[in-house]
Amino acid sequence: MTLASTLALVATVSTPLAAAPPVSAAVRGVLDAQVEAWNRKDLEGFMAGYWRSPDLVFCSGTTVTRGWDATLARYRKRYQSEGHEMGRLRFDAVEVVPLGEDAALARGAWSLATSDGKEPHGLFTLILRRVGGGWRIVHDHTSSGE
Amino acid sequence: MTLASTLALVATVSTPLAAAPPVSAAVRGVLDAQVEAWNRKDLEGFMAGYWRSPDLVFCSGTTVTRGWDATLARYRKRYQSEGHEMGRLRFDAVEVVPLGEDAALARGAWSLATSDGKEPHGLFTLILRRVGGGWRIVHDHTSSGE
Repeated sequence: MTLASTLALVATVSTPLAAAPPVSAAVRGVLDAQVEAWNRKDLEGFMAGYWRSPDLVFCSGTTVTRGWDATLARYRKRYQSEGHEMGRLRFDAVEVVPLGEDAALARGAWSLATSDGKEPHGLFTLILRRVGGGWRIVHDHTSSGE
Repeated sequence: MTLASTLALVATVSTPLAAAPPVSAAVRGVLDAQVEAWNRKDLEGFMAGYWRSPDLVFCSGTTVTRGWDATLARYRKRYQSEGHEMGRLRFDAVEVVPLGEDAALARGAWSLATSDGKEPHGLFTLILRRVGGGWRIVHDHTSSGE
Protein backbone atom coordinates (compact mmCIF):
# COMPACT_ATOMS: atom_id res chain seq x y z
CA MET A 1 0.00 0.00 0.00
CA THR A 2 1.42 3.37 -0.95
CA LEU A 3 1.51 6.29 1.44
CA ALA A 4 -1.08 8.08 -0.72
CA SER A 5 -3.56 5.17 -0.63
CA THR A 6 -3.04 4.79 3.13
CA LEU A 7 -3.81 8.45 3.67
CA ALA A 8 -6.87 8.16 1.40
CA LEU A 9 -8.11 5.19 3.44
CA VAL A 10 -7.60 7.05 6.71
CA ALA A 11 -9.48 10.04 5.30
CA THR A 12 -12.35 7.82 4.13
CA VAL A 13 -12.66 6.01 7.44
CA SER A 14 -12.40 9.09 9.61
CA THR A 15 -14.67 11.36 7.58
CA PRO A 16 -18.04 10.07 8.81
CA LEU A 17 -17.08 10.71 12.44
CA ALA A 18 -15.25 13.93 11.77
CA ALA A 19 -18.11 15.27 9.65
CA ALA A 20 -20.98 14.21 11.92
CA PRO A 21 -22.52 17.43 13.23
CA PRO A 22 -23.18 17.71 16.95
CA VAL A 23 -26.65 16.50 17.97
CA SER A 24 -27.96 20.01 18.44
CA ALA A 25 -26.89 21.17 14.97
CA ALA A 26 -28.30 18.04 13.33
CA VAL A 27 -31.66 18.48 15.07
CA ARG A 28 -31.82 22.18 14.18
CA GLY A 29 -31.06 21.18 10.59
CA VAL A 30 -34.14 18.93 10.55
CA LEU A 31 -36.33 21.73 11.91
CA ASP A 32 -34.92 24.34 9.52
CA ALA A 33 -35.58 22.00 6.59
CA GLN A 34 -39.16 21.55 7.80
CA VAL A 35 -39.80 25.28 7.93
CA GLU A 36 -38.30 25.78 4.47
CA ALA A 37 -40.42 22.96 3.03
CA TRP A 38 -43.60 24.30 4.65
CA ASN A 39 -43.00 27.78 3.30
CA ARG A 40 -42.69 26.49 -0.26
CA LYS A 41 -46.01 24.58 0.29
CA ASP A 42 -44.18 21.25 0.19
CA LEU A 43 -46.03 19.16 2.76
CA GLU A 44 -44.25 15.93 1.78
CA GLY A 45 -40.94 17.72 2.26
CA PHE A 46 -42.12 18.97 5.65
CA MET A 47 -43.13 15.41 6.56
CA ALA A 48 -39.62 14.16 5.72
CA GLY A 49 -38.62 15.38 9.18
CA TYR A 50 -40.92 12.78 10.75
CA TRP A 51 -40.18 9.10 11.30
CA ARG A 52 -41.90 7.26 8.45
CA SER A 53 -43.47 4.68 10.70
CA PRO A 54 -46.89 3.61 11.99
CA ASP A 55 -45.39 4.28 15.44
CA LEU A 56 -44.95 8.01 14.92
CA VAL A 57 -47.14 9.79 17.49
CA PHE A 58 -48.56 13.28 17.04
CA CYS A 59 -50.40 14.87 19.98
CA SER A 60 -52.38 18.08 19.63
CA GLY A 61 -55.00 19.44 22.01
CA THR A 62 -56.96 16.36 23.07
CA THR A 63 -56.22 14.28 19.97
CA VAL A 64 -53.56 11.63 19.35
CA THR A 65 -52.71 10.81 15.72
CA ARG A 66 -50.70 7.64 15.14
CA GLY A 67 -48.54 6.90 12.12
CA TRP A 68 -46.81 8.92 9.41
CA ASP A 69 -49.65 8.48 6.90
CA ALA A 70 -52.34 9.65 9.33
CA THR A 71 -50.18 12.61 10.37
CA LEU A 72 -49.75 13.68 6.74
CA ALA A 73 -53.51 13.28 6.22
CA ARG A 74 -54.16 15.50 9.25
CA TYR A 75 -51.87 18.20 7.89
CA ARG A 76 -53.47 17.98 4.42
CA LYS A 77 -56.94 18.37 5.90
CA ARG A 78 -56.03 21.32 8.11
CA TYR A 79 -53.79 23.23 5.75
CA GLN A 80 -54.38 22.16 2.14
CA SER A 81 -58.11 21.42 1.94
CA GLU A 82 -60.83 23.78 0.67
CA GLY A 83 -60.89 27.01 2.67
CA HIS A 84 -57.55 26.41 4.35
CA GLU A 85 -54.08 27.69 3.67
CA MET A 86 -50.60 26.80 4.84
CA GLY A 87 -49.54 30.35 5.70
CA ARG A 88 -45.98 31.23 6.59
CA LEU A 89 -44.43 29.13 9.37
CA ARG A 90 -41.90 30.28 11.94
CA PHE A 91 -40.20 28.45 14.77
CA ASP A 92 -38.82 30.62 17.57
CA ALA A 93 -36.92 30.09 20.80
CA VAL A 94 -35.88 26.59 19.78
CA GLU A 95 -33.91 24.69 22.42
CA VAL A 96 -32.35 21.28 21.84
CA VAL A 97 -31.58 19.02 24.78
CA PRO A 98 -29.58 15.87 23.88
CA LEU A 99 -30.87 12.76 25.69
CA GLY A 100 -28.11 10.21 25.32
CA GLU A 101 -26.47 9.19 22.05
CA ASP A 102 -29.51 8.63 19.91
CA ALA A 103 -32.32 10.78 21.25
CA ALA A 104 -32.98 14.47 21.72
CA LEU A 105 -35.69 16.80 22.92
CA ALA A 106 -36.45 19.94 20.91
CA ARG A 107 -38.88 22.55 22.19
CA GLY A 108 -39.92 25.93 20.97
CA ALA A 109 -42.70 28.18 19.76
CA TRP A 110 -44.46 28.04 16.39
CA SER A 111 -46.47 30.67 14.61
CA LEU A 112 -48.26 30.83 11.29
CA ALA A 113 -48.83 34.09 9.45
CA THR A 114 -51.94 33.69 7.30
CA SER A 115 -53.41 35.89 4.58
CA ASP A 116 -56.36 36.98 6.75
CA GLY A 117 -53.91 38.61 9.17
CA LYS A 118 -54.47 36.07 11.93
CA GLU A 119 -51.45 34.52 13.52
CA PRO A 120 -52.23 31.18 15.16
CA HIS A 121 -49.37 30.25 17.47
CA GLY A 122 -48.35 27.90 20.22
CA LEU A 123 -45.66 25.59 21.53
CA PHE A 124 -44.13 22.34 20.41
CA THR A 125 -42.25 19.51 22.08
CA LEU A 126 -40.46 17.12 19.75
CA ILE A 127 -38.60 13.91 20.50
CA LEU A 128 -36.12 12.98 17.82
CA ARG A 129 -34.17 9.79 17.44
CA ARG A 130 -31.30 8.83 15.22
CA VAL A 131 -32.94 6.60 12.61
CA GLY A 132 -30.64 5.09 10.01
CA GLY A 133 -28.30 7.91 9.08
CA GLY A 134 -30.38 10.88 10.18
CA TRP A 135 -32.51 12.37 12.93
CA ARG A 136 -36.27 12.06 12.72
CA ILE A 137 -39.15 13.25 14.89
CA VAL A 138 -40.73 10.20 16.56
CA HIS A 139 -43.11 12.12 18.85
CA ASP A 140 -44.65 15.58 18.44
CA HIS A 141 -46.79 17.40 21.00
CA THR A 142 -48.17 20.66 19.73
CA SER A 143 -50.40 23.08 21.57
CA SER A 144 -52.06 26.36 20.77
CA GLY A 145 -54.22 28.75 22.81
CA GLU A 146 -56.16 26.98 25.55
CA MET B 1 -13.44 -12.34 56.66
CA THR B 2 -16.03 -14.98 57.59
CA LEU B 3 -18.29 -16.60 55.05
CA ALA B 4 -21.27 -14.76 56.52
CA SER B 5 -19.66 -11.34 56.21
CA THR B 6 -18.55 -12.15 52.65
CA LEU B 7 -22.11 -13.08 51.70
CA ALA B 8 -23.40 -9.95 53.39
CA LEU B 9 -20.97 -7.83 51.38
CA VAL B 10 -21.97 -9.53 48.11
CA ALA B 11 -25.62 -8.95 48.95
CA THR B 12 -25.00 -5.29 49.71
CA VAL B 13 -23.03 -4.68 46.53
CA SER B 14 -25.37 -6.58 44.24
CA THR B 15 -28.66 -5.31 45.65
CA PRO B 16 -28.76 -1.90 43.96
CA LEU B 17 -28.48 -3.45 40.50
CA ALA B 18 -30.66 -6.44 41.21
CA ALA B 19 -33.39 -4.33 42.77
CA ALA B 20 -33.43 -1.51 40.20
CA PRO B 21 -36.82 -1.66 38.46
CA PRO B 22 -36.89 -1.47 34.66
CA VAL B 23 -37.14 2.09 33.36
CA SER B 24 -40.79 1.72 32.45
CA ALA B 25 -41.81 0.53 35.92
CA ALA B 26 -39.79 3.27 37.60
CA VAL B 27 -41.38 5.97 35.45
CA ARG B 28 -44.87 4.61 36.01
CA GLY B 29 -44.11 4.65 39.73
CA VAL B 30 -43.38 8.38 39.57
CA LEU B 31 -46.66 9.04 37.73
CA ASP B 32 -48.71 6.84 40.06
CA ALA B 33 -47.24 8.67 43.05
CA GLN B 34 -48.19 12.00 41.46
CA VAL B 35 -51.80 10.95 40.95
CA GLU B 36 -52.05 9.65 44.52
CA ALA B 37 -50.58 12.89 45.89
CA TRP B 38 -52.92 15.05 43.79
CA ASN B 39 -55.97 13.11 44.93
CA ARG B 40 -55.11 13.67 48.58
CA LYS B 41 -54.71 17.43 47.77
CA ASP B 42 -50.97 17.22 48.37
CA LEU B 43 -49.57 19.58 45.76
CA GLU B 44 -46.03 19.45 47.19
CA GLY B 45 -46.19 15.66 47.00
CA PHE B 46 -47.38 15.92 43.41
CA MET B 47 -44.51 18.29 42.66
CA ALA B 48 -42.01 15.75 44.05
CA GLY B 49 -42.25 14.04 40.65
CA TYR B 50 -40.67 17.09 39.03
CA TRP B 51 -36.99 17.97 38.85
CA ARG B 52 -36.40 20.53 41.61
CA SER B 53 -34.45 22.89 39.39
CA PRO B 54 -34.73 26.32 37.80
CA ASP B 55 -34.29 24.40 34.51
CA LEU B 56 -37.53 22.45 34.77
CA VAL B 57 -39.74 23.45 31.81
CA PHE B 58 -43.53 23.26 31.81
CA CYS B 59 -45.37 24.00 28.54
CA SER B 60 -49.13 24.44 28.39
CA GLY B 61 -51.15 26.02 25.60
CA THR B 62 -49.05 29.01 24.54
CA THR B 63 -47.26 29.48 27.87
CA VAL B 64 -43.85 28.28 29.02
CA THR B 65 -43.22 28.16 32.78
CA ARG B 66 -39.61 27.77 33.86
CA GLY B 67 -38.40 26.39 37.18
CA TRP B 68 -39.84 24.18 39.90
CA ASP B 69 -40.94 27.12 42.08
CA ALA B 70 -42.80 28.84 39.25
CA THR B 71 -44.44 25.55 38.25
CA LEU B 72 -45.68 24.98 41.80
CA ALA B 73 -46.96 28.58 41.89
CA ARG B 74 -48.84 27.97 38.62
CA TYR B 75 -50.50 24.85 40.05
CA ARG B 76 -51.40 26.66 43.28
CA LYS B 77 -53.01 29.50 41.37
CA ARG B 78 -54.99 27.25 39.04
CA TYR B 79 -56.07 24.59 41.51
CA GLN B 80 -55.80 25.87 45.07
CA SER B 81 -56.74 29.56 44.88
CA GLU B 82 -60.16 31.08 45.62
CA GLY B 83 -62.83 29.58 43.37
CA HIS B 84 -60.69 26.70 42.17
CA GLU B 85 -60.47 23.08 43.18
CA MET B 86 -58.07 20.24 42.53
CA GLY B 87 -60.71 17.70 41.54
CA ARG B 88 -59.87 14.07 41.05
CA LEU B 89 -57.01 13.35 38.65
CA ARG B 90 -56.68 10.36 36.34
CA PHE B 91 -53.96 9.41 33.90
CA ASP B 92 -54.98 7.00 31.12
CA ALA B 93 -53.31 5.25 28.20
CA VAL B 94 -49.87 5.91 29.62
CA GLU B 95 -46.99 4.75 27.41
CA VAL B 96 -43.35 4.87 28.45
CA VAL B 97 -40.62 4.90 25.81
CA PRO B 98 -37.08 4.54 27.21
CA LEU B 99 -34.57 6.88 25.50
CA GLY B 100 -31.17 5.53 26.41
CA GLU B 101 -29.98 4.75 29.92
CA ASP B 102 -31.01 7.89 31.72
CA ALA B 103 -33.95 9.39 29.86
CA ALA B 104 -37.50 8.36 29.03
CA LEU B 105 -40.58 9.71 27.32
CA ALA B 106 -43.97 9.20 28.96
CA ARG B 107 -47.17 10.16 27.17
CA GLY B 108 -50.81 9.75 28.00
CA ALA B 109 -54.14 11.37 28.67
CA TRP B 110 -55.17 13.28 31.77
CA SER B 111 -58.62 14.11 33.09
CA LEU B 112 -59.91 15.91 36.13
CA ALA B 113 -63.31 15.16 37.64
CA THR B 114 -64.53 18.30 39.39
CA SER B 115 -67.47 18.91 41.71
CA ASP B 116 -69.42 20.90 39.09
CA GLY B 117 -69.55 17.80 36.89
CA LYS B 118 -67.15 19.19 34.30
CA GLU B 119 -64.28 17.01 33.24
CA PRO B 120 -61.40 19.01 31.78
CA HIS B 121 -59.08 16.67 29.92
CA GLY B 122 -56.20 16.53 27.51
CA LEU B 123 -52.84 15.01 26.75
CA PHE B 124 -49.41 15.11 28.31
CA THR B 125 -45.86 14.51 27.11
CA LEU B 126 -43.25 14.11 29.83
CA ILE B 127 -39.49 13.78 29.57
CA LEU B 128 -37.96 12.15 32.62
CA ARG B 129 -34.32 11.81 33.50
CA ARG B 130 -32.52 9.80 36.10
CA VAL B 131 -31.53 12.42 38.66
CA GLY B 132 -29.54 11.19 41.64
CA GLY B 133 -31.22 7.95 42.62
CA GLY B 134 -34.62 8.47 41.03
CA TRP B 135 -36.51 9.53 37.93
CA ARG B 136 -37.83 13.08 37.69
CA ILE B 137 -39.83 14.99 35.10
CA VAL B 138 -37.55 17.58 33.50
CA HIS B 139 -39.98 18.72 30.78
CA ASP B 140 -43.79 18.65 30.72
CA HIS B 141 -46.00 19.60 27.78
CA THR B 142 -49.67 19.53 28.61
CA SER B 143 -52.56 20.35 26.31
CA SER B 144 -56.30 20.49 26.64
CA GLY B 145 -59.08 21.26 24.15
CA GLU B 146 -57.97 23.51 21.31
